[in-house]
Amino acid sequence: MSDTLLAGLASRLGPRGLLTGSDAASAGWSSLGRPIAIARPSSVEEVVAVIRMCAEAGVPVVPWGGKTGLVGGANADGAVALTLERMNRILQVAPDDGVMIVEAGCVVQTACEAAEAQGMFLPLDLGSRGSATIGGVISTNAGGNRVLRFGMMRDMVLGLEAVLADGSVVSSLTPLIKNNTGYDLKQLFIGSEGTLGVVTKAVLRLRPHLPSHNVALVAIDAFADVIRLMRRLESRLGGQLSAFEVMWKDYYRLVTTAPARGRPIVPLGHEYYVVIEMLGGDPAGDPGRFQAVLAETLEGGLIQDAVVAQSRAEGAAIWALRDDGEQVQRDGPIAAFDVSLRLSRVEPFSQALRERLHARWPQSRVILFGHIGDGNIHIVVGVDPERADMRRQLDEAVFGLLAEHEGSVSAEHGIGVDKRPYLALSRSPVELDLMRRLKQSLDPGGVLNPGKVIAEA
Amino acid sequence: MSDTLLAGLASRLGPRGLLTGSDAASAGWSSLGRPIAIARPSSVEEVVAVIRMCAEAGVPVVPWGGKTGLVGGANADGAVALTLERMNRILQVAPDDGVMIVEAGCVVQTACEAAEAQGMFLPLDLGSRGSATIGGVISTNAGGNRVLRFGMMRDMVLGLEAVLADGSVVSSLTPLIKNNTGYDLKQLFIGSEGTLGVVTKAVLRLRPHLPSHNVALVAIDAFADVIRLMRRLESRLGGQLSAFEVMWKDYYRLVTTAPARGRPIVPLGHEYYVVIEMLGGDPAGDPGRFQAVLAETLEGGLIQDAVVAQSRAEGAAIWALRDDGEQVQRDGPIAAFDVSLRLSRVEPFSQALRERLHARWPQSRVILFGHIGDGNIHIVVGVDPERADMRRQLDEAVFGLLAEHEGSVSAEHGIGVDKRPYLALSRSPVELDLMRRLKQSLDPGGVLNPGKVIAEA
Repeated sequence: MSDTLLAGLASRLGPRGLLTGSDAASAGWSSLGRPIAIARPSSVEEVVAVIRMCAEAGVPVVPWGGKTGLVGGANADGAVALTLERMNRILQVAPDDGVMIVEAGCVVQTACEAAEAQGMFLPLDLGSRGSATIGGVISTNAGGNRVLRFGMMRDMVLGLEAVLADGSVVSSLTPLIKNNTGYDLKQLFIGSEGTLGVVTKAVLRLRPHLPSHNVALVAIDAFADVIRLMRRLESRLGGQLSAFEVMWKDYYRLVTTAPARGRPIVPLGHEYYVVIEMLGGDPAGDPGRFQAVLAETLEGGLIQDAVVAQSRAEGAAIWALRDDGEQVQRDGPIAAFDVSLRLSRVEPFSQALRERLHARWPQSRVILFGHIGDGNIHIVVGVDPERADMRRQLDEAVFGLLAEHEGSVSAEHGIGVDKRPYLALSRSPVELDLMRRLKQSLDPGGVLNPGKVIAEA
Repeated sequence: MSDTLLAGLASRLGPRGLLTGSDAASAGWSSLGRPIAIARPSSVEEVVAVIRMCAEAGVPVVPWGGKTGLVGGANADGAVALTLERMNRILQVAPDDGVMIVEAGCVVQTACEAAEAQGMFLPLDLGSRGSATIGGVISTNAGGNRVLRFGMMRDMVLGLEAVLADGSVVSSLTPLIKNNTGYDLKQLFIGSEGTLGVVTKAVLRLRPHLPSHNVALVAIDAFADVIRLMRRLESRLGGQLSAFEVMWKDYYRLVTTAPARGRPIVPLGHEYYVVIEMLGGDPAGDPGRFQAVLAETLEGGLIQDAVVAQSRAEGAAIWALRDDGEQVQRDGPIAAFDVSLRLSRVEPFSQALRERLHARWPQSRVILFGHIGDGNIHIVVGVDPERADMRRQLDEAVFGLLAEHEGSVSAEHGIGVDKRPYLALSRSPVELDLMRRLKQSLDPGGVLNPGKVIAEA
């Protein structure tokens, strides 16, 4: 069966279009499994052909973007992996209309640079910007550092083209911001991790270039003041606040001490460190305003210390601390969690989490950082490699506590296979049933990324 | 059959819960038809009961919000109308979490005021704010004056509760901004005009109160400069521009001459008049910045005249001109269109439209105004009441030209029944098929608002 399929695919896609055998063994951030082949279509027609032929043969198709997902959503064991890497063109940048059209395989950073070259701004900023693809960030509804102001990927997609499990092509490539003509079908494909369709093209909304970048790092001793500061800045900077990233003290210590390359820009010894970014349009006036608002909060006692970057390089040095997430792995194996809570629950949850984990594993290291404006925290816990059961117990401890605090088991990384056992902690039986109904309606044969997000009925 | 149903509903809902006979004859902006009864449930359990009983009896259910829709989406001929007017409570305003929870029957303005009372801001601003309900604006994905900065209703909904055609309650009342746990089910109910479920509650995202309101009215002679001005302001005001509303000269003349109460704030004689609003957080500094940016554009010749409001009252007077849409009806019957185009097509389309309409109906009046930042224009055409066929011919002329310019036949008013014949001009056969598939999957019996948005398969 699969030999016939592979022969058919090879014939349809040509020599550059199909990798098999050892060529199909690949690597990425997530566990990719062992696909029976990697299909590399160069057009939407070829994507259709791959999906039709696989459906016919009863072989699943697993879409691949940048392969930098974190929840096993691209695991292609026994499936044909469908990579969009050859469909990576920027089809159009239209500054007058405020949009760009790209193929799904285009790398995020490439798209950002193409927009910038035309005086526009694609406000998507995430750690994997150099590898993640537009199709991948659409499929996972990626977030990142500027969600506070510009929203998730969902908010940047005006239209898209997707191929369904039956091979039909849904072309909703509208560049319109307002378009209430029936159901908003693109929403089906955003954040559904390739289980309802394969995204092949997208129309992205662009913003005007914002020439004034203002960055500061501040230290705060009480979490309540972190929230007060954020509300104050949201109001005082009136929509220009673009990032508010919190590092708990353990994270800050890690990224400012050797072997990390960073050094403390604000002295160690405080509880919380916040990266604040304001993007504006007035390079002459903005820095003064930014500094004045921060000075006000310092005098008022809301913050304990602050350094305002005086140049792009100083701003980059502050961001480099926040972005040096690799340091959390330097002292041994870890387990990482990406959760969200309503803002007022973030600190009660964090404190209870430390207590619960320390009571059970007295030696455990717990490191926190995240996008506080969105109630999104990343939790890193050191694990003992000699205790094979600890990982699962840890999952249960973290997610159990999270459910008590009505949090979400996945803020921005998605469900994939890794978080599937815990999905029911964040979604009700009726919701899960409705998800299955949608999957059943759009992909009754279970062709597209089966077993991801939800278990088949 | 329907007598048994009515008796059952009356018994379940109580005397205040059901209107029949002459009590069920009602009126509103849109054509509401003749429902066989009006159900007035007071709880989600009663909504479930109404839907189950109607489904059993084979009688359609038509949800009613504020009944101020413009496309016949609430027409309840032969159906049970389900009004949410008794489910209008504000359940929670949580400034710390930046959210509020309301029942669907809550009037928009009431929700806005409740947020404001807690120092927060619900940035939904539309003409029908005093009558439209939260459930209604969710079902139609309403837009309005501040979409440019804050998005459509879709962007303000974090979670919702909806009742499906089978009576199951999808409770997705999450207050989380980031929540990638499976399919984003709420999207199914936003903008689908009550055809996939009845929205009963919503969690809305709030923004911090913005104390600085800055409003100006400017006159411009060339449309290209209108666009240039918008881009300039978007960039220079760095995210604080909250409205950019254009009135073509005919509209401006109508709203500034008797019997309208408004008078020209900027002199007549120019081609375009733009209401510009900047909401900010710095009442001391914002007005100066706003004025300086406008002065710059005046000196540069981008605008021909400008008046900056010096008080709240002056700002309100400028907005009152834009909001006095009633004037377009004062010279006789009209047909109104709500379309959107990519920005670069707005003026070519508008010019071609005038030419085409004048060629065919030399006496026709064509009045334009709209939310240019979103590519959304409202078109008003005077119709000859003695020519019964003119309305349909006009629809065909406007929508035919619109399709040539790749526009949308409904920017923010939805499809209902009135725009259904033209839906295929904006959506492809595959898209329409997918819409039908969703309807079939969620409401196989055609219980909820049948015949609206899409024709049954």
